[in-house]
Amino acid sequence: MTVDDKIRKIQEMMKKDHLDGWIVYGSDPHNSEYVCPRWRTRAFLTGFTGSAGTVLVTPDGADLWVDSRYHIQAEAEIKGTCITLFKADKPGVPTFWEYLCSQKTQLHRIGTSADCLMKAELDRMTAEGFEVVPTADYLDAIWPDRPSVPDFPVRQMPDRICGFSAKEKLDQVRSKFGDIDYMMISSLDDIAWVLNLRGNDIAYNPVFLSYLLIGRSDTVLFADRKRFSDEIYDSISNVVRVLPYDQTGLFVGTIEQGKKVALDFGKTNMLIYSSFPAKTQFVNQMDVTTRMKACKNPVELDGMREAHILDGAALVNFLAKVKKNPEGWTEMKLTDTLQAERDKMPGELGPSFGPIAGYAAHGAMCHYSATEKSSSAVKRGLVVLDTGGHYEMGMTDVTRTLLFGMPTADEKRDYTLVLKGHLALFRTHFPEGTCGIQLDALASQFLWNNGLLFSHGTGHGVGFCLCVHEGPASISHRVGSASTEYPLQIGMVISDEPGVYLEGRHGVRIENLVAVQKAETTEFGNFFKFEFLTMCPYERDLIDKSMLTDEEIALVDSYHKEVLDKLSSKVAPEALAYLKEATKPL
Amino acid sequence: MTVDDKIRKIQEMMKKDHLDGWIVYGSDPHNSEYVCPRWRTRAFLTGFTGSAGTVLVTPDGADLWVDSRYHIQAEAEIKGTCITLFKADKPGVPTFWEYLCSQKTQLHRIGTSADCLMKAELDRMTAEGFEVVPTADYLDAIWPDRPSVPDFPVRQMPDRICGFSAKEKLDQVRSKFGDIDYMMISSLDDIAWVLNLRGNDIAYNPVFLSYLLIGRSDTVLFADRKRFSDEIYDSISNVVRVLPYDQTGLFVGTIEQGKKVALDFGKTNMLIYSSFPAKTQFVNQMDVTTRMKACKNPVELDGMREAHILDGAALVNFLAKVKKNPEGWTEMKLTDTLQAERDKMPGELGPSFGPIAGYAAHGAMCHYSATEKSSSAVKRGLVVLDTGGHYEMGMTDVTRTLLFGMPTADEKRDYTLVLKGHLALFRTHFPEGTCGIQLDALASQFLWNNGLLFSHGTGHGVGFCLCVHEGPASISHRVGSASTEYPLQIGMVISDEPGVYLEGRHGVRIENLVAVQKAETTEFGNFFKFEFLTMCPYERDLIDKSMLTDEEIALVDSYHKEVLDKLSSKVAPEALAYLKEATKPL
Repeated sequence: MTVDDKIRKIQEMMKKDHLDGWIVYGSDPHNSEYVCPRWRTRAFLTGFTGSAGTVLVTPDGADLWVDSRYHIQAEAEIKGTCITLFKADKPGVPTFWEYLCSQKTQLHRIGTSADCLMKAELDRMTAEGFEVVPTADYLDAIWPDRPSVPDFPVRQMPDRICGFSAKEKLDQVRSKFGDIDYMMISSLDDIAWVLNLRGNDIAYNPVFLSYLLIGRSDTVLFADRKRFSDEIYDSISNVVRVLPYDQTGLFVGTIEQGKKVALDFGKTNMLIYSSFPAKTQFVNQMDVTTRMKACKNPVELDGMREAHILDGAALVNFLAKVKKNPEGWTEMKLTDTLQAERDKMPGELGPSFGPIAGYAAHGAMCHYSATEKSSSAVKRGLVVLDTGGHYEMGMTDVTRTLLFGMPTADEKRDYTLVLKGHLALFRTHFPEGTCGIQLDALASQFLWNNGLLFSHGTGHGVGFCLCVHEGPASISHRVGSASTEYPLQIGMVISDEPGVYLEGRHGVRIENLVAVQKAETTEFGNFFKFEFLTMCPYERDLIDKSMLTDEEIALVDSYHKEVLDKLSSKVAPEALAYLKEATKPL
Repeated sequence: MTVDDKIRKIQEMMKKDHLDGWIVYGSDPHNSEYVCPRWRTRAFLTGFTGSAGTVLVTPDGADLWVDSRYHIQAEAEIKGTCITLFKADKPGVPTFWEYLCSQKTQLHRIGTSADCLMKAELDRMTAEGFEVVPTADYLDAIWPDRPSVPDFPVRQMPDRICGFSAKEKLDQVRSKFGDIDYMMISSLDDIAWVLNLRGNDIAYNPVFLSYLLIGRSDTVLFADRKRFSDEIYDSISNVVRVLPYDQTGLFVGTIEQGKKVALDFGKTNMLIYSSFPAKTQFVNQMDVTTRMKACKNPVELDGMREAHILDGAALVNFLAKVKKNPEGWTEMKLTDTLQAERDKMPGELGPSFGPIAGYAAHGAMCHYSATEKSSSAVKRGLVVLDTGGHYEMGMTDVTRTLLFGMPTADEKRDYTLVLKGHLALFRTHFPEGTCGIQLDALASQFLWNNGLLFSHGTGHGVGFCLCVHEGPASISHRVGSASTEYPLQIGMVISDEPGVYLEGRHGVRIENLVAVQKAETTEFGNFFKFEFLTMCPYERDLIDKSMLTDEEIALVDSYHKEVLDKLSSKVAPEALAYLKEATKPL
């Protein structure tokens, strides 16, 4: 079936439901950032394979909104179809929401698949005056070989690695119940975290499709029995009842009338929401589990530190090879070789996200990901290398910008400006209550003073053996965003990754993960600071020392000394000389 | 009548209206920050004379909320009355809003004087489930000698000082009408600004009580005829019809049904709001005049620069006197002497706000204002001196921290940390679209790294010959505040005033006004920077040069050179030696 055929079929179904529009958000029933094959709905319908975008089917056609990362790719992938492309971020191009609001007279009655329509989105549209109709998933009718709901085996993490048992965590959640009767958790990483379980349903994100209903005494996990070995089933049966995933709605419909149920409207789909009894009192709040898992406990933090040392050793082993023989690399060969080094590390479980290696102009494309076809041969210039690993006791996300050959003056300047911002953010102390948006400019100030900027966030929260993007921790310039305006708290793990991207020329990004720690308490209250978790040398031949203050030089030197101390006994013997050279004082 | 008598009378009136509570916000019908004597309602009812606080009268008593600036003063002033004091900002003490929400069962039906109840506040309370009753002003019945609505003469500013005539400004406003039929302006400084008029109704704030209804062709100014000389009346009659202030509601009630009226719910009181015809379509938005006046035009900026040179000369003349003879000063003698110097300047019109001089521990009280009784004799130590002047062509607001005698190491450290933050904020460039909250940490970072902080905003917008606090320009750490999250724009005038306050010891604050200017345009868009308007030397004996970077030293030196160049021909001959000494390179 062609794309146009599929859209025609959707339009026929819309007609029966008297709809002016039908939306495909491209997420899953849990509003996950990354989805399993069953919910790659946007790609199925339009042929556009990027990770973000919104589709609006109307009686006469279909529209697709993609952000600047995907303007070129989307244009190529939808060529020849009836779809109109909206290049959001371009001046004068309305966002999906702006467009919808501007067409309110024609687009009044709007449908979308109930299982992927979040309650918060329904409320937003209703408040704006739209009639919102949660529909069946029209795609089912035109997608004969649609992948099924995944049911890969679920594994259990040892309590000693998690810091607390599932029972202890559930008790901690319940201690925050107040007058709540139930908490309904839809967020997959929250469920995995609170139960010390991990799955394999979504690439790079070790979660499993499920819902969790936490009651005052009873807790129900909605996930299929066959996913659990008898041993794990016996173990978790002590803390939860396991019922089938597809019976979630049926079960919550049997809850006593008038109960108080806390849930996050941003993560609760309408199929689940509307299954609760009519008189349920809903409390819309960020899930308590989201708040708890954001602040890593001391055992989790120790695991993260250990994972970062293993990961640092893999990185140094890889870098030593590259530096010894800088000829004959391609972007893919770089990421493959690094992954092979990671694979040698004890407890390594695979990449924590799709690796990025961007040479020269590719490095200026922020979310570039090399394919067999695009993978460039690496000659003189910069490579932005953004990769990470899952380990049994933690996970990593690290970016280094590598130099091949001799640097240009611009490359050194850009690298050093980014490094200064990276260090300025790292070294600041800040009072308890400070939010990410308040710190963001520290990382950008040196770029700004040179007429440069980067438009991605400076830091995202990182999970514990879970998702590499984990809210609500965030450091960004996005004013009015809930996560950017969520206070930084002790135990949060977050990235410090300023960059700069010169279109058609080169990109620079430097990323370490940091953990929020207590700094000091004075008459003005508590102050926090950051601890570097990532252990890997910076690219010293790209540092223009004359642009650094004495304080910055001392900071680089002390970090490099720490890297040397922690990694020298872990790296391969043939990498030691590189490690020593790369970490000597500037 | 005692305070308790007054409260009993209010309670009787509440009973007739079946109210559970009656609120006194203490503002005026225009939601002004400062009010004329008629609307000093909070002070009349409770005896508390501070500039902020909320009163809630209940059937059994009365409660007063004041912030940390006023904990001690309020306690003293309400002593012996039936009023319960809530010291907001203290741990565990609910804010007024938290308290109201926590008492929802008893406090269901809440009244407040309709003319001082803003539509936005009514909406907030209604959304929270309260029944809100706009009432008559109960105080009228118990305040026999209540001051009348002020009707001081209104003066007209020459167009050449304002940059545009009132007609031109009104045309600019109308060009932003879109499909709006009327804009209803309640904000007093907006009205004064757009009409090039100034009043004398509120101390330090040259506004006059009025409303302005801007239509597509017709514009009506609601202000009493007798306030205008014949000459001014003739002049403004070309652009507005003048109708009596007390007929505003009557008139807007005669507007044709179904018109689209833009107004700012945060500044529109319920008496006015409910006077519009039933089918009026309201558009709640920040007044266009507020946005326009925030960005000073080139003529206004030139006037501001000129005023700052005159003001700087007055400051230097004053400082030269103090430095020549540092004995025998009191806090009040300092502010009086400075004002006497300002009064000698051509075009000076008086102080732009109540002057602050805080010696030693008084300087650590952020909003301390000396009275005849409290005014300290100044001995060794620091004085925070925060003052400003109105001039015909601009206005100023400047803080210098003065040293008397030899400094302690702590005093020098604190002064230098504050200065470093003041300079860091000043010297940053930033991309178009940047909001105040993003820059705030630049001013605080050095304090934070030493376990210090200040809790007031870092910068407030300043008017053009109007209010010294003018929104929406703001640089502050207050996450989620509309003004902190309003982008900084070319022409905005804003203060750069970090400080630090060591309770019982000393305070430091350094404040210059800055104007937002274009810096450069690159492939990443437009970048902005700040220009110093304030021209006055820093206190060089408080600067610990060893704590400054070379860049900071160069910045202080170049600023001091600019101060010397601009002021040397303006200061009194006997002050020149001080000026030269104070501005020589560090």
